Amino acid sequence: MSDETAPAKTVTACVLVIGNEILSGRTKDANLAWLAVELNKLGVRLMEARVIPDIETTIVATLNEVRARFDYVFTTGGIGPTHDDITAACVARAFDVPLVRNPEAVRRLQAHYASPADLNEARLRMANTPEGATLIDNPISKAPGFRIGNVFVMAGIPSIMQAMFDGLRRSLVGGAPMLSRTINAALAEGVMAADLAAIQAAHPSLEIGSYPYMRQGKPGAAIVLRGIEAGPLAVAAEAVKAMMRSHGVEPREDPTDAP
Amino acid sequence: MSDETAPAKTVTACVLVIGNEILSGRTKDANLAWLAVELNKLGVRLMEARVIPDIETTIVATLNEVRARFDYVFTTGGIGPTHDDITAACVARAFDVPLVRNPEAVRRLQAHYASPADLNEARLRMANTPEGATLIDNPISKAPGFRIGNVFVMAGIPSIMQAMFDGLRRSLVGGAPMLSRTINAALAEGVMAADLAAIQAAHPSLEIGSYPYMRQGKPGAAIVLRGIEAGPLAVAAEAVKAMMRSHGVEPREDPTDAP
Repeated sequence: MSDETAPAKTVTACVLVIGNEILSGRTKDANLAWLAVELNKLGVRLMEARVIPDIETTIVATLNEVRARFDYVFTTGGIGPTHDDITAACVARAFDVPLVRNPEAVRRLQAHYASPADLNEARLRMANTPEGATLIDNPISKAPGFRIGNVFVMAGIPSIMQAMFDGLRRSLVGGAPMLSRTINAALAEGVMAADLAAIQAAHPSLEIGSYPYMRQGKPGAAIVLRGIEAGPLAVAAEAVKAMMRSHGVEPREDPTDAP
Repeated sequence: MSDETAPAKTVTACVLVIGNEILSGRTKDANLAWLAVELNKLGVRLMEARVIPDIETTIVATLNEVRARFDYVFTTGGIGPTHDDITAACVARAFDVPLVRNPEAVRRLQAHYASPADLNEARLRMANTPEGATLIDNPISKAPGFRIGNVFVMAGIPSIMQAMFDGLRRSLVGGAPMLSRTINAALAEGVMAADLAAIQAAHPSLEIGSYPYMRQGKPGAAIVLRGIEAGPLAVAAEAVKAMMRSHGVEPREDPTDAP
């Protein structure tokens, strides 16, 4: 098989949302949904996400499991100055390396805080990174995230997390971008189910999902077709449209991802 | 030790959000945040949540891991009539029991669909449950969820999931309710960090979290204290307030969870 016809490598990712406040319901996570969209744009397939508490044994075990299973791991939360910010120490333990004070991170914090008295020991903890880690820029509040191996450690505050991720986009290598078609019809999905199953069976390289909704009291469904090859995607999308017409309903394609 | 002084059992839970559409970013999950709040109210501690794709091996392995680790497991998604709805079959496989057509579920679907022709084979799939499962009522669209062992299988559409959960509240046995105090101050958390660590160290039975924010360009933080015993909680809350005053700022307690 030549390189030209070899299937593009699928690049996978896992997101770890770290923080008791999400699990207690106090804070509504906004990072997972944002990262899901942005990773997809980069051709990185988010395969799993977990929300875990600020418990060292849980964080270490989870990190070691998912960094072995996925190409990239992105964590959010737990890198501030207080006692409950334990992510950096847990990452060091997971990689079995010492947690060290990063001189460049210290320099950035020194530049940010007006007087040396403001840069107290608690804030200096934000300069602690696992040995061998490289920094992730924080253009907002300066205290950096870091990368070690395939693990990217970012802040939990959404504006800061997003700024950190924006800065590291160019260092992420995606696979073939996932192409998508979305076709809507005012048909209950139960009416289309048998036909959809046949279309899915005929196109095993595609992922066909059915997402039902009610609109003005009438059932409808969005049929989403995803795959890395435009050819089969176009054939299957036409088959879905023809199927909808066979049930007497004109399909409406979502223009945001139409070809 | 008498029963009166024995610490109440902690009852734990895990939520599994099942669906490619969450991981692709197409759909923003709303179930996790809602369940986090409701479980907390019932004295059930949500210890972990995972978002996983519609892949049989992943669903089965994840279910078997988390149902052994937590008292309760709640799943959302994947119980509709289309080919991508594979949750029931995966739960049966995880429990190593056959997937069978549940007569009571069939009866409910028959009552819901106007004509026998409407209740096609695809829709009848929604009556398939693992052998030994009991049904979870669906007052909205009738197709039931089900419970087997400590696993509760619910719909992905939030209104239906919430209605299902509301119906099974009385069958869930919580532990001691988690009490909470939230104290705000217009202080950067880095200023309070050393004192907070000392207060946490003095109250190991409590969970003290610091959640920073910016308001009108000025830093502030919510200090959240959680625990099952009101006594230590009150003592620690006073210590937090005194600490804030020692930094020259008057604390403001969030009235929603004040004693």
